[in-house]
Amino acid sequence: MASIFTKIINREIPAHIIAEDDRNIAFLDIMPLVKGHVLVVPKKEVNYIFDMEPEDLTALHLFAQKVAKVMDQTISCTRIGVAVIGLEVPHVHVHLVPLRTMDDINFTRPKLKLSQEELAEIAEKIRKGFE
Amino acid sequence: MASIFTKIINREIPAHIIAEDDRNIAFLDIMPLVKGHVLVVPKKEVNYIFDMEPEDLTALHLFAQKVAKVMDQTISCTRIGVAVIGLEVPHVHVHLVPLRTMDDINFTRPKLKLSQEELAEIAEKIRKGFE
Repeated sequence: MASIFTKIINREIPAHIIAEDDRNIAFLDIMPLVKGHVLVVPKKEVNYIFDMEPEDLTALHLFAQKVAKVMDQTISCTRIGVAVIGLEVPHVHVHLVPLRTMDDINFTRPKLKLSQEELAEIAEKIRKGFE
Repeated sequence: MASIFTKIINREIPAHIIAEDDRNIAFLDIMPLVKGHVLVVPKKEVNYIFDMEPEDLTALHLFAQKVAKVMDQTISCTRIGVAVIGLEVPHVHVHLVPLRTMDDINFTRPKLKLSQEELAEIAEKIRKGFE
């Protein structure tokens, strides 16, 4: 069965998409740790990041770098943190998390509850950074 | 001034080194979240991962993949998690953390206190996986 991320890639379920190329997509995490928390996902569905082909892994990280550079310019933070955990959804996803403190990237703390309007506004702000 | 990691790379201070190539090095974090917590560090001293040249970023992640694959074979865990935070030491370091639960990669929790003997034993176990 297709993962929830594949359904986003195929436009079967909605998401606040930030950027996309032929191999990867970036969209807002709907259960963000902080405002502007983005997921970067390869379109090829692989469960575990270290099982990816080196070429796909390279493409994923270079795409994530482009997205993070735009996030740095459009979101107020000290820098963008990176995490790949993967104990829940079995489809590789790189968390890009705007950081001010170490606790901003603590996945055990309660997630933010943002409205669709707030998420849409954040996504639009980041997307404008690509223009 | 050289970072603490550059001093490790230059063998000016000791570390439990796991693997090394011409551009990157991997050694045990001496303040680990869990047993087998490894740091992967580029030899070129850059503060922020997203400021790295794409070629160096690629080399870093492909090297980290090799190390993580060996960790998967030598350390008891569900998978290897990845984090890049960088709010403390201003020299890029990728945390590779053997995971069982989400809390294993929570950087706000107290670090383990392992003896030099325990660290040496873990490092030796991982190094053997490269043979």
